[in-house]
This record gives sequence, C-alpha cells and structure tokens, in this order.
Amino acid sequence: MEIKSENASFGGVQGVYTHAATSTDCEMTFAVYLPPQASKGPVPCLWYLSGLTCTHENAMTKAGLQEHAARRGLALVFPDTSPRGDGVADDDAYDLGKGAGFYVNATEAPWAAHYRMYDYVLTELRALVQAEFPVLPDRHGITGHSMGGHGAITLALRNPGAYRSLSAFAPIANPTGSDWGRKQLTAYLGADESAWSGHDSTLLVGAGGWKGGMLIDQGASDQFLDLLKPEALSAALARSRTPSVFRMQPGYDHSYFFVQSFAGDHVDWHADRLK
Amino acid sequence: MEIKSENASFGGVQGVYTHAATSTDCEMTFAVYLPPQASKGPVPCLWYLSGLTCTHENAMTKAGLQEHAARRGLALVFPDTSPRGDGVADDDAYDLGKGAGFYVNATEAPWAAHYRMYDYVLTELRALVQAEFPVLPDRHGITGHSMGGHGAITLALRNPGAYRSLSAFAPIANPTGSDWGRKQLTAYLGADESAWSGHDSTLLVGAGGWKGGMLIDQGASDQFLDLLKPEALSAALARSRTPSVFRMQPGYDHSYFFVQSFAGDHVDWHADRLK
Repeated sequence: MEIKSENASFGGVQGVYTHAATSTDCEMTFAVYLPPQASKGPVPCLWYLSGLTCTHENAMTKAGLQEHAARRGLALVFPDTSPRGDGVADDDAYDLGKGAGFYVNATEAPWAAHYRMYDYVLTELRALVQAEFPVLPDRHGITGHSMGGHGAITLALRNPGAYRSLSAFAPIANPTGSDWGRKQLTAYLGADESAWSGHDSTLLVGAGGWKGGMLIDQGASDQFLDLLKPEALSAALARSRTPSVFRMQPGYDHSYFFVQSFAGDHVDWHADRLK
Repeated sequence: MEIKSENASFGGVQGVYTHAATSTDCEMTFAVYLPPQASKGPVPCLWYLSGLTCTHENAMTKAGLQEHAARRGLALVFPDTSPRGDGVADDDAYDLGKGAGFYVNATEAPWAAHYRMYDYVLTELRALVQAEFPVLPDRHGITGHSMGGHGAITLALRNPGAYRSLSAFAPIANPTGSDWGRKQLTAYLGADESAWSGHDSTLLVGAGGWKGGMLIDQGASDQFLDLLKPEALSAALARSRTPSVFRMQPGYDHSYFFVQSFAGDHVDWHADRLK
C-alpha cells in the first residue's frame, strides 16, 4: 500500500492510498478518513460506495461526511467505482466500463478479467483496511449514492454478517427493471436474467433477508427518478416488513448537495448501530 | 441576472448565477446560498472570497459552509476570483491573470480593462445581491481563503462600514513582501510600491483602522507558509492591539480539508456579530 496524500481534517486524517489489487488485477486507489478518536484505539468503520462516473475522490471532497464522522468517531472508506488502467476494458458510454463497475463480479468477456468490484469491496479492500488502519473488524457499516447505494444494499443483504448497519442515498433500486441496470447486467453477467437477481435491491429485499434496519433518503426532485425506481424498493420494504426508514425528501435532486444535506443523519444512523 | 442552476441544500437553495458586469466589463458567474430562514424574511450575508486558480465553484462544493449557514441562518455569496472570457487578458502563470485577480482595481495595461475585482466585489455584486436576494443590507460579513483571505481583510479594513464581521483562512498576509504579491501588484498597479500599501493586510492592520474583531485560522503544516507570511500579520495585530483571534492550527495544510475543518467556527464567528 502506498500513501498518495494525507491531509488533516477535523482533527483526524483524510488519506488517499493505492495498492496492487488481486481481485481486479490492477492498481486501485481508495481513500480512508480516520477520526481523531482513532489515535486512541480502533474505531467503527463506515464504507461509502460512489455512483456512476465517480472515483474515490467525489464523496471524499463533496459529501461533507468527515465532520460528522469526527463527531461520532467513525472511520470512513471511499473505494473507487471500477478497475482502472490502460489494460482494463472500457466503453464510450458513461454508464458502462470504467466508473461504472456496478459492484458485481463480471463473468462475461471482455469484462471478467478486471471487473470484480463485488469481491474487491467485500473481501480484498476490507482485509487491507483492517490490516492497515485502526478499525474494529466486527463493526463495519455501509452506505452509498446512486449506483453506490445499489452496491451498499446488495453487498449488505447478500452478506448479513459483513455489515452491521446499512443506508443509501438515492440508490439504483431495481436495476433488473431499469436502463440503469439491464444494459450493465447483460454486459457483465450475460443475457440470462437468472444471474441478475442477486444484484437487485428490490428483489433481495423481497426475499426478506435483512433484519438489521435500513435508512434510505431519496430526493423528490431527483432528475433520475425513472431510472432509480424508488417506488419498487419502498414497496418491497413494506411488503417484506423489513425494518426500515424510507424518506422522500421534497425539493432535493440527485447531486452532492442532496447527499451533503443528509450526511449527518446517515452517519448518526450508522454510529448508533456500530457502537 | 440568469439562473444557471439551483439545488436544494440543507433546507435552503444553493444557486449559481451569471450577469453582465459593468466593473469588469464581462460576464461574471457567482453563487449564492440561501438558508431555510430566508424563506421567511431577509437574513444576514457572509461573503467568501476564494484563492488562486479558483472560481465560484470550489468553496461552494468543498468548504462545507452550507450546513453551518443553514444552522445559523446566514446567506453565503461566492464570487469568482477574476474577470473571465476570451477578450480578457491572461498570463500563462497560475498566479497572474484569470483566477488570480487579487481583489484590486488594475491601473496598468493590459489588465486595467477588466481586472477590477475590488469594485466588483465591494460595490457591483453587492448591489446585485441586495437587489435580487433576501439579505439584510446592513448585515454583511466577509471571509476568504489564501488570496481570498487577503481580499477579505483588505476590503473590510479599507471600508469599515461595508462589513460588520471579518475572518480569514490562511490569508496571503503580507503581499508587498512576498512572491505572492510583488509580481501581481507590479503587474496590476505598477512598479511604484506606494500604490500597493492599500492592498496589504499587514500594512493596513498596522495602520490601526479595524476595531471590529478578526478571526484568522492558519495551518501550521501549510505548504505555503513562506508565501503567506502569517507571522507578519500576527505581529501587526498584536502591535496595533487590534481585537483579534489568530489560531495556528497544528497539522493542517492549505487544502479545503483545512477550510472545511474550521468552517463551522467561522460561520459562528460571523453569525454572532451579524445578528
């Protein structure tokens, strides 16, 4: 692991690091925020998965999470959204290939060689973070925005022991029924839709696997409501009686101004469950 | 005035606007944040002047000021840092020309035609903001970062009636004695140094004109300490007995991670004095 930068932030340290990743077979960049409490001993850890076109950097600089993480004593991890590098397959579209890994393990060519963000986030980066930073191994929570909200919910629901707390900002909630999903799942996982259901929050919630609670914020003026399909997820949460809070926030759009506005509530949600 | 974008943010609105500016003889872009309290009536207003290479956008997205402004009921204004456009003189260096207006009225060719950021911020944009947004005309405060900290202090000290509260993050504190200053003041104001003294915070403080209090935060690990010269300003504040709080913050550098870490303190400083 190599340090790219470290900046003091709210009494803690916001760092950016690179490492040679096995799962994605390329060099990966990620960011970790350590709150001031981490200088005294290990702290709980909140993962933030970003959306389409993002890197580790967008939320690190624009989500305003550090202030609240420092207040509550949480570490933050900001992974990248896809494999990177000259040898990594890509597509001209913004929503496929680099910046659009969708947090799956691709099985189809040309993607299968590097696009294994599911394994990368769940296992490889988790092990690295636990080895290199003072975080409590059994106190991890996960959240994310848009494609990252999809990633957070699907990773948590498929691996109930891995994360103790879960939330999302405007997640891609029903990708098997959306143009933000069908195209990418076809490319990464193949045309057989039976392989897709493990990567759809609405379907996973419908299967009833999550009892840990879930906070979802969605802007009512989001410009991508037709692609996100929040109503599918909210209905599935209600039908399955999943413990959850789904907030439709009037006036808010899909931007980081929206994420920032509710970042404090999400950090509190996780901190309350990780202590 | 034209609306470029408006995003909901912490119950208020973060907007970006353009207008044809007379003082700089070009189209200018600026951002205004209105807190939720502004929907009930006019609110106090805090101006944030940005540093070298910045536009209106950097602090708007990275300083984390909106959360605190919403908490305290302050409007925020983020001006650009220079005139813009194809017909505006520029220089290849990052620290002269576009993005580097230094908040002066240039008198020298080729700069004098557009580089009038002093008048633009103090008078023209102030009048526009007061006409178009619900802000209290006699409750304005000013702050800024780096070159913008220089701008905030110099504008406030030269115009004691214009701003009721003043602070700065890592200001260029003594430009007449720094490579961040001598080059630009020569270009914009000419080689006669007697024209420079009105644009140097240390010299203005030394003249003893400011009684309103001043909060300065400076990172002790700032990579530009030699250019900022905080010791010149801190000595001048002490010698002149100017009411002030000068905080040398251990571990912090010159980045927006530093600004963000103390944004809440600065908003509180201004809100306490503008109510």
